[in-house]
Amino acid sequence: MPVTISGGKLRRITRLAGENGRFRMMAADQRGSMQKAIASATGKEATYEQVAEMKTLITRTLSSNSTAVLTDPIFGYPYSIMDIPRDVGLLLAFEESGYVDDGVGENERASVQIVNWDIEKAIRSGIDAIKLLIYYHPDASLNACNHQQNFTKYVGEQCEKFDLPFLLEFVCYSLDGESTNSLEFAKQKPDLVIRSVEEFTKPEYKVDILKVEFPANLKFTEEYKDWDFYAGESAYTLSEVEEFCQDLDAKSTLPWVILSAGVDIEEFIENVKISSANGASGFLCGRAIWKDAVPLYPDKDAVTKFLLGEATVNFENSNAAVSNATPWFNHKRFGGLKNIELDKKGENWYEIY
Amino acid sequence: MPVTISGGKLRRITRLAGENGRFRMMAADQRGSMQKAIASATGKEATYEQVAEMKTLITRTLSSNSTAVLTDPIFGYPYSIMDIPRDVGLLLAFEESGYVDDGVGENERASVQIVNWDIEKAIRSGIDAIKLLIYYHPDASLNACNHQQNFTKYVGEQCEKFDLPFLLEFVCYSLDGESTNSLEFAKQKPDLVIRSVEEFTKPEYKVDILKVEFPANLKFTEEYKDWDFYAGESAYTLSEVEEFCQDLDAKSTLPWVILSAGVDIEEFIENVKISSANGASGFLCGRAIWKDAVPLYPDKDAVTKFLLGEATVNFENSNAAVSNATPWFNHKRFGGLKNIELDKKGENWYEIY
Repeated sequence: MPVTISGGKLRRITRLAGENGRFRMMAADQRGSMQKAIASATGKEATYEQVAEMKTLITRTLSSNSTAVLTDPIFGYPYSIMDIPRDVGLLLAFEESGYVDDGVGENERASVQIVNWDIEKAIRSGIDAIKLLIYYHPDASLNACNHQQNFTKYVGEQCEKFDLPFLLEFVCYSLDGESTNSLEFAKQKPDLVIRSVEEFTKPEYKVDILKVEFPANLKFTEEYKDWDFYAGESAYTLSEVEEFCQDLDAKSTLPWVILSAGVDIEEFIENVKISSANGASGFLCGRAIWKDAVPLYPDKDAVTKFLLGEATVNFENSNAAVSNATPWFNHKRFGGLKNIELDKKGENWYEIY
Repeated sequence: MPVTISGGKLRRITRLAGENGRFRMMAADQRGSMQKAIASATGKEATYEQVAEMKTLITRTLSSNSTAVLTDPIFGYPYSIMDIPRDVGLLLAFEESGYVDDGVGENERASVQIVNWDIEKAIRSGIDAIKLLIYYHPDASLNACNHQQNFTKYVGEQCEKFDLPFLLEFVCYSLDGESTNSLEFAKQKPDLVIRSVEEFTKPEYKVDILKVEFPANLKFTEEYKDWDFYAGESAYTLSEVEEFCQDLDAKSTLPWVILSAGVDIEEFIENVKISSANGASGFLCGRAIWKDAVPLYPDKDAVTKFLLGEATVNFENSNAAVSNATPWFNHKRFGGLKNIELDKKGENWYEIY
């Protein structure tokens, strides 16, 4: 049975991935976390210009290592667009940075769109996909879950209207407000991530690509006890972690990529290797690659030197780690390039499109 | 003084040209001429499927030599879209093939849009530019000129609305219905082409890139008298031809590329070399490169062999001929990459875009 997709979505997804169908995408859409990191480097509140400048430096020096760059329409696009090479795809964030806690329960999180920004502007600006980040906990209140689900559906519908691919990222959080870097949370994480995958791969969300957290925490994985990032106690073994990835892949009806959540590069590369060997189609990663450049700001020469040196090596190593990843068109959603057909075709395509 | 351009147009123009800013674009949007060529190869009227198949073979085998591919939304897009590599730009034709002669004077030509096709569908389909071909003679009746000018303005406005680059092609014709390959027409051609350039580079047309005929006919150029294509008599010398190109370039306020109008490859490569040395930014060419494949249809193996062999060599030679071309961003319209700014920028870009 051929799988169908619109011409616009197909053309744009092709631009996000490499020729081999694997995603090696860079995120530079951080806003709140970037402002904080710059403030901590300079000792003063970060200005708009400083955030835009830091993003421009990252985009200019690192984009050519990637198959696509994710930036934001506030600090990113207006200053970085000229630094994204012609053969590198472009994604723009749709959500306001962070989350709001009005109208949801204690410790719960609701995502909202950037005010005065919409999908029509996004498609005009020449991008290849919309990225939406939502914070999601499957056991949050019905109210909180509904809000995030409805927002996601709205964005999915808008993207479908313009044939813009929809990349959905979800990040889980702790409902008791505790750290997500605890043994307790590490134990919950596989279940939280996989249940979220089950929810947002439902067809009503009209998502095209999932950007997911690694469904475990290698800081609490037995086989990593000699690594710098090991937390001192174990929640699972490596073979259990591989099973979590396989379970995620079995439940995902869509191609999925891994995010870095700002972990150190050594841990991220392990995440990429394990997920790539178990069904992922690559990564969309920012901080793990470039975060150590920010403390050098505002010394632009030092920032650039770091980005061209250590960060570029980080990127190359991350790229090497996707060699086993599943090309998006070979994911079971598509079943191979030969199995893909346009949803509309034939001699009246231009009339019915 | 910085020159401004919208982010959407900038991003998409970047994808049409090579990294060096030179256009090496392939046309495969022929419809009427392709139907005739196939009919003449098979001895029967060409079916929709045959035209679509021939275009798919051309696009599949040759696209990777180009910086962008121009196809049409009837026979081209629905069958060829999967064969255009991720790093090759995409243009779609807006006009109905050929021309109509209703409502204009004898021998005059009016262009019309493809019915039930529009710019909104075009942008959704993921393209990087609209191409409009109009037949134009600056001495045609006011009625005929107005029709073509108004149609061009309409398309320019629509493209601006969606930040889609607008590539305008104009082809001149003989008002007395005689052949355009005569000595007489060869003498008129520089004037016809250059006056059309003066008209359509006016800002009200909102054109971004001009696709122009070579402003002379090398078949009637003294220095080519030993070449196979020489017509036996001369209208000008090579240095006069170079001056026509320089005059065109001086009068064009926009980057311009050369079309092939189906001349043989030897003549086309001379056209490209001379125009590239005198201000052109490259070519958008179809038949000169691949036309000899069509008589081999329906023998698909023979067609493919020709396209991968001789046509590929034609493309490589054409590509080599643009080495002196002016990068689009160095055209006087822009004055260099460093001189280009977004028309809207700053911290409220996402609100005002």
